[in-house]
Parts: sequence; structure tokens; C-alpha cells
Amino acid sequence: MPTLAKTPSPRRKTAVKRSQKLSSQDSGKDSSSISLRDEVVAYRKERILQAACDAFYEHGYHECTVEMIAERLSGSKAIVYYYFSDKHSILYEIYRRALDEAQILILRAAADHSSCKEKLVAIARAYANWVTDNTRTVGVYWREVQSLTPEARAAVFAEQKKIDDVVAHVIRDGVADYTFKVSDVQTTARAITGMITFTYTWWRDDKRLSREAVADSYAEMALRLVGSFT
Amino acid sequence: MPTLAKTPSPRRKTAVKRSQKLSSQDSGKDSSSISLRDEVVAYRKERILQAACDAFYEHGYHECTVEMIAERLSGSKAIVYYYFSDKHSILYEIYRRALDEAQILILRAAADHSSCKEKLVAIARAYANWVTDNTRTVGVYWREVQSLTPEARAAVFAEQKKIDDVVAHVIRDGVADYTFKVSDVQTTARAITGMITFTYTWWRDDKRLSREAVADSYAEMALRLVGSFT
Repeated sequence: MPTLAKTPSPRRKTAVKRSQKLSSQDSGKDSSSISLRDEVVAYRKERILQAACDAFYEHGYHECTVEMIAERLSGSKAIVYYYFSDKHSILYEIYRRALDEAQILILRAAADHSSCKEKLVAIARAYANWVTDNTRTVGVYWREVQSLTPEARAAVFAEQKKIDDVVAHVIRDGVADYTFKVSDVQTTARAITGMITFTYTWWRDDKRLSREAVADSYAEMALRLVGSFT
Repeated sequence: MPTLAKTPSPRRKTAVKRSQKLSSQDSGKDSSSISLRDEVVAYRKERILQAACDAFYEHGYHECTVEMIAERLSGSKAIVYYYFSDKHSILYEIYRRALDEAQILILRAAADHSSCKEKLVAIARAYANWVTDNTRTVGVYWREVQSLTPEARAAVFAEQKKIDDVVAHVIRDGVADYTFKVSDVQTTARAITGMITFTYTWWRDDKRLSREAVADSYAEMALRLVGSFT
């Protein structure tokens, strides 16, 4: 079997972790019963997606070829085409996974806490961490919207709206129990997700602000926006 | 002389107004002394930039040709090349003008008021109005960063930073005179410009929120973020 990479990359550990999580989701079984084959497939798809995301981020989707993606994996185009039918399928899969991940972490953050205030803090923190951990994915996501087919774009927008809806739901509950006070629930929800998402444009790992400091800031600012920071 | 458009477009009025303002800025004279030639040049460049911005927004920079831009003006490529040396010059000019406009309105909003609170409200309102009036320009701006040459990109980032710096300066003054209370001035400034900028991704003229309602919301939310909303 051809291997996708000659040398291990620093992002390989993440790929393994993610591919295990994803193949476990796909099969619907617990991780102990996943076959080695499923793991290899999930791992390879994940590596291709990471390489594609890096390539799209650096050169833009239209400037990239499947060959360029394969080169980053020290493999041939054939390997990429074995898992994805074309370049657009790779791009769409980047969106789909980003949406899955963001939705899951936001729903989980809300479910793990009982009060609206705790829920909002947990959402802001989890989403901020995800954005700072995935600045390239978030960058590709917002830059390449026009590169999706109209059908794919509509599906992406519909799923994306669900993220703002979860935040709006938490804010609405907080307004109902007098914890929060806002003038416009939907615009406030969009301001919270918007300011955090926009972090991809300026945050870099090597700069003055740590990932944790960013998350702390947004947790505080989210509470300020709903009038609940004391 | 060849005309750039056969029929007047709804955005033509804006182009006339902008071209008058721009030719007046270029010549450094008051508007009464501008020659007709200057006006025509400024007007035509403005019309080309608007058509290019629409084309880039709808199809993406790399999918667009100078021919497609000329077609939108019912003109030939030659007219576009008469004013711009190549497609990248048009893109860069879109960035340059967007930065000019945003910087000027933010500086003016700050200069027109004396208290930090009034300054921040005026900045949030003016910038929000500018974003909702220019969703396509803002869209192209954030999507096509990778399409700029590295030199152009560096210049754009440097100018862009000045916008956050003005906001940070106002916040810092407000903290100094105990009007505002924030944990991190720079991140707060970025959150304010970020949440407003991100409006380009969701606001449409025909939706539930008017341009004025958006501006009101952001003025309130900016004050909330600096702990000065009562």
C-alpha cells in the first residue's frame, strides 16, 4: 500500500486523534471495535483534508491543483482521487467537517452547563479555542464561499445558521429568566459568533496573546454583550 | 468618446457622488474648480471599480477576466486597460479605496466628538453604516487577501491596523478617564471592529434589520464591550 507521508508531520498526532474520532462516528460502534482498515481510511482522508486546507489557505482554492495537494503528502494524485472524486469534494468536505466540529462543540458546551451564564461562557470559550486552533480552516471557510457550488453554499449557510441559533437560544433563555438584558437577541448572537470568528484574521500562535487569554477575553466580552458581566 | 454604460444603473448616483468627492480630494481644490476632464476620469474609474467589485464578489477574483468587467460596463477591455494596467491593479485599488474610506470616516467620527463615549458611539455607527453600504466591497476585501501580491498584502495589513489603532486609542483614553473599564484594550478594539466587519456575511438590504437598526445595535454593543452602557 502506498503511504501518504514519508516523514511524520507535527500535525500528524491531530490527524490520528481526529481520524479515530471520525471513524468511530462513521461506524456507530465504540472505538474498540473499529477495524484497522476503517482507521487507515479515516486517517488518510484527514491527512488529505489537512494538506488541502493548507494549500487552499496559502494559494487560494482556484490556484490549487489536486497535484499540489498530493505533493504536500509526498504522494500521487491517484491517492487523493481514491478518496475524493474532485477538488470541489475536498473543499466541501472541509466545510462539512468545520461545521460538524463547531456545531458539536457549541452544543456540548451548552449541554454541559445548567445556567445560561455558564452556557454562554462555555460556548464563547470553546468556540474561541476552536477558531484559534483552526485559523487556516476558518480562513478557507470564509474566503472560499464563492468557490462552492450554489447547492453546497446553500447547505453550508443552513448549517451555519444553526450555530447562531444555539447562541440565540441561550441568550433568549437568559433574557427570560432575567440573567441577561439585550435589545436584539439575534444581532447579539451574531456579534458574539462574529467577533470570535473574525479572530482568524489576526491571531497567530506566536503573538502576544495565548490561546487561553483569547478564550478568557471572549468569555468576558460575551457576558458584557448580554449585560451580565460583573 | 466611448461611453462606459448604455443604461443608467441604480448604483450610478453613488458613482457620481464618489467620483466628485475623489476628484476633489485628488486635485486638492474645491469642487467648483474641478475641470470636466478630471470629473469624467474619476467617474469612469469609479464605475470600473464598482463593476470589478461586483464581478469579483459574484465569481471570485481568479475566475474573473478584464473582459467580464468590461462587459458589465457595456464597454471593451481597452477602456478598462486605459485606466488600470492589469486586473491586480484594479483589485489593489479596491482595497486602497476601502481603507481610505474606512480610515477617514473613523477618524472623522472620533474628531467630531469630544467625549470618549461619544467618539466610540460615532465610530461604531459610522463604520456599521459603511459596512452595510458596502457589503460587496467588504466581502471582496476579506475573501481576496490571498490574491494580492505579498507587497500589496503587507501594505493593506499595515493600513488596516491603523483602524483598530484609532479604536484602541479611544478606548485607552476612556479607560484613563474612568469612563470605560476593559481587561484588554487591543482585543476589545478588535472585537468591536471585528463584529461590525463580519456583518458583511449576513446583512442584506431586504432583510428584517434596517441599516439604521444595525448601526444602533453596534453603537450599543460597543458601549457594552467597554463597560459603559447604561
